[in-house]
Amino acid sequence: MPNNKKNILLLGGLGFIGKNLIEEFSLDDNYNIIIFDHKDKPLDDKWLNKNIKLYYGDFILTSDLEKIFKENKIDIVFHLISTTIPSSSNNNIIADINYNLGRTIKLLDLIRDYAIKKIVFFSSGGTIYGLPDRSFPDRFPEDYQNNPICSHGIVKLTIEKYLYLYKYFYGIDYLILRLANPFGEYHSSGVQGLINVALEKIIENKPVTIWGDGEIIRDYIYIKDCAHAIKNLVDKNISNNIINIGSGFGYSVNEILSMIKKITGDFKINRLESRKFDVPKIVLDISKIKSKIDFKLTDINVGIKKTYNWILKKSL
Amino acid sequence: MPNNKKNILLLGGLGFIGKNLIEEFSLDDNYNIIIFDHKDKPLDDKWLNKNIKLYYGDFILTSDLEKIFKENKIDIVFHLISTTIPSSSNNNIIADINYNLGRTIKLLDLIRDYAIKKIVFFSSGGTIYGLPDRSFPDRFPEDYQNNPICSHGIVKLTIEKYLYLYKYFYGIDYLILRLANPFGEYHSSGVQGLINVALEKIIENKPVTIWGDGEIIRDYIYIKDCAHAIKNLVDKNISNNIINIGSGFGYSVNEILSMIKKITGDFKINRLESRKFDVPKIVLDISKIKSKIDFKLTDINVGIKKTYNWILKKSL
Repeated sequence: MPNNKKNILLLGGLGFIGKNLIEEFSLDDNYNIIIFDHKDKPLDDKWLNKNIKLYYGDFILTSDLEKIFKENKIDIVFHLISTTIPSSSNNNIIADINYNLGRTIKLLDLIRDYAIKKIVFFSSGGTIYGLPDRSFPDRFPEDYQNNPICSHGIVKLTIEKYLYLYKYFYGIDYLILRLANPFGEYHSSGVQGLINVALEKIIENKPVTIWGDGEIIRDYIYIKDCAHAIKNLVDKNISNNIINIGSGFGYSVNEILSMIKKITGDFKINRLESRKFDVPKIVLDISKIKSKIDFKLTDINVGIKKTYNWILKKSL
Repeated sequence: MPNNKKNILLLGGLGFIGKNLIEEFSLDDNYNIIIFDHKDKPLDDKWLNKNIKLYYGDFILTSDLEKIFKENKIDIVFHLISTTIPSSSNNNIIADINYNLGRTIKLLDLIRDYAIKKIVFFSSGGTIYGLPDRSFPDRFPEDYQNNPICSHGIVKLTIEKYLYLYKYFYGIDYLILRLANPFGEYHSSGVQGLINVALEKIIENKPVTIWGDGEIIRDYIYIKDCAHAIKNLVDKNISNNIINIGSGFGYSVNEILSMIKKITGDFKINRLESRKFDVPKIVLDISKIKSKIDFKLTDINVGIKKTYNWILKKSL
């Protein structure tokens, strides 16, 4: 690998966001991609001929991670690993802390010891703000107060604080990305992510589950816009910033289901009781990212249609 | 114990702050005091005849804590246990997280399972604010941003976030106290707490160590004012609040040493290089506590003099 190229390491690179980052970065010859993920996740055939290195291992084993740093001069680490999702993270808080927080500290120590310059951390725009002390703002800016109501969000916030500390003492640059609710190609969770999960169910002719009255508002962003923005931020070497990545628009679950219906036709809905950990409204203020890069957004209806076509194609 | 009395549990009750709380609460017949601490800490003779129950145990053992909740109907838990101090907490972050954060989660689970109504948590006014994004404010109010530069402060902040979560889901009331730099009677650390450590050294005829040019500014509060204020907050059942407890005044290390010199006469100073984890200036905004209780402060020179006399007396 020539020296003027940047070696980026995608930890958890074969997940939903990771695969979109591979697609985005593999188009640019200035980057070499190194992926670390679980043994059970295959690399898609179309990327096999590209200049991509793949390491299988366990995030809990320092030796598995250290092997990568010994064998490669990594320029930027992308940390996409998380074992919890918001809805279940309160069921085992100790495990959330030990694994997601504890192992990230071990990672930061390795990054320091191997003199790696930068880490891009995937935080949670959807859970890190939580409940405001007073009324909900129209949009949450990055410097808004943080009262998460799930452990997933608290652990993400705590990691952000340690990133600040490691920058201060060891000079490791960070880029903290607070993603809203991404949807689109390569999504694979069967439980998290309204748009993808609903489209999957509809194609399988199963009912779509919603909790509560469907008036919960979220900020949905098409994953390709997200990946493109992240690459732009990295290209421009934006560092030591916390950046919201969302659409800046809020839609209720009911509004999203109406949009989907226009594409898929009618479907059954399975209504369950509302869940206490679902914050009523989260829309991100995206002024900051707009001030850093040329930030373009796909129309949400177009994004949903593309997602639908992708699921149809892979279901064939 | 009669039912109209409140049973308070002081976890780490035989430390500096704990002993001052014992002194404060034991004067009021409305409270029964139950203490939990390490085996090696004796209860002072003068309290032996009072209505105080003492449990020795290890905070790491859930069974040691659970025994107390099984044998007593606790009304309020005071959580004073911390194994780290700011200056050394960055040396073993994983241990700080596992012990201080992890064990506090276990404690919160017990508090939930035994339907205990309230926890008073001792956070850190001195470290939780850290470095401001822009210039230092004259005083830090409770809703100021948090960028701690020591793990001790990050763990305290994270515990605050989990207290919010446990209140939200399980109705456990919290009172979070962000203490400034307390000094005075029953202080026992040989390394932390400028005023006490300096007075001890001077009495032992040893040099007083300071780091840097002595221009670091801190907010010092006489511990008896602190304990009295905490009892008032608990008497008034102030809950689900984060409250700074400090003097609202800032003094440099050099100014403190001058005040001490007026009491003790001249002494030697051992000057070492400044430490990167020492934030230049921390003074707490105390408007909130003033709005909740009648908050009285002892003149700092009087407080130092009383502390000096106490150390002299115990050194006899």
